[in-house]
Amino acid sequence: MAQKITVRPLSKTAFVGFGDVIETRGAEQRIINDGTTTRFHDLAGIDVAGDGGRPLISIFRGQPFAYPVEITMMERHPLGSQAFFPLANRPFLVVVAPDEDGRPGTPQAFLAACDQGVNYAKNIWHHPLLALDVVSDFLIVDRGGAGENLHQHNYSGEPFLIIE
Amino acid sequence: MAQKITVRPLSKTAFVGFGDVIETRGAEQRIINDGTTTRFHDLAGIDVAGDGGRPLISIFRGQPFAYPVEITMMERHPLGSQAFFPLANRPFLVVVAPDEDGRPGTPQAFLAACDQGVNYAKNIWHHPLLALDVVSDFLIVDRGGAGENLHQHNYSGEPFLIIE
Repeated sequence: MAQKITVRPLSKTAFVGFGDVIETRGAEQRIINDGTTTRFHDLAGIDVAGDGGRPLISIFRGQPFAYPVEITMMERHPLGSQAFFPLANRPFLVVVAPDEDGRPGTPQAFLAACDQGVNYAKNIWHHPLLALDVVSDFLIVDRGGAGENLHQHNYSGEPFLIIE
Repeated sequence: MAQKITVRPLSKTAFVGFGDVIETRGAEQRIINDGTTTRFHDLAGIDVAGDGGRPLISIFRGQPFAYPVEITMMERHPLGSQAFFPLANRPFLVVVAPDEDGRPGTPQAFLAACDQGVNYAKNIWHHPLLALDVVSDFLIVDRGGAGENLHQHNYSGEPFLIIE
């Protein structure tokens, strides 16, 4: 029978070991521009420079998913981090897994709030983009450059089911 | 008497020489994630690695301005590009100027649509963040690292007035 995984709220504490939660909460604040701007400073560890890599800004337009979301595979980027921030002012799903001898273990699912992004650390297993309910755009900062930067793994057996 | 400058719509054509317009229009599209995501690929030239720099992701929270917007100064970042993308789904003002012997010339003003960002190229004169009407958040990709990365210049005489 398919294993059900209940989604949890995304927080820095819950996401330890997988990368960064990109959010203003708890961030270093700098008042700049003659007092007209607050800078929430340096919210993610961008790690893309190895092996001749360079940072890219792209926009991802994700088709929507709905609960229960079937998880049959995971991927990881061995050469660079990958940051996602929602532009649609909507929550989205973040699914990651610990590595177990070169394969993803049991998935963990988080609901990112509309004002939270994530930065998957280099080589962390994660599911491709999971927008919810409506087509949604995201701003992405990841790695460009030569090299094989994608590993994918299909789980054997029944899909995992992400439920609310 | 103050010189009035009428805002123009932001477009790649109008912004030539100042940096990048970050938008899906006209971008290279890649269908990824088993068809569930469109990647609008590599939308800005991130140029932050010189002099030991590294890319940062930050969030800027800008206080709102309203027309006519007074322009009394400009700034530039000699060591790195600086990208802004709106998170508030609202238009914002982009004000830049050509360099004239190390000082900013007459400003040019553009209205960025709610789904357009900008990336100021290294050393391009621009005005600090100009949100419109309401407090608005922006995702920023710019440079961290040692070095003096800020030049500011105060215009002499009357402020320029940006009008609709």
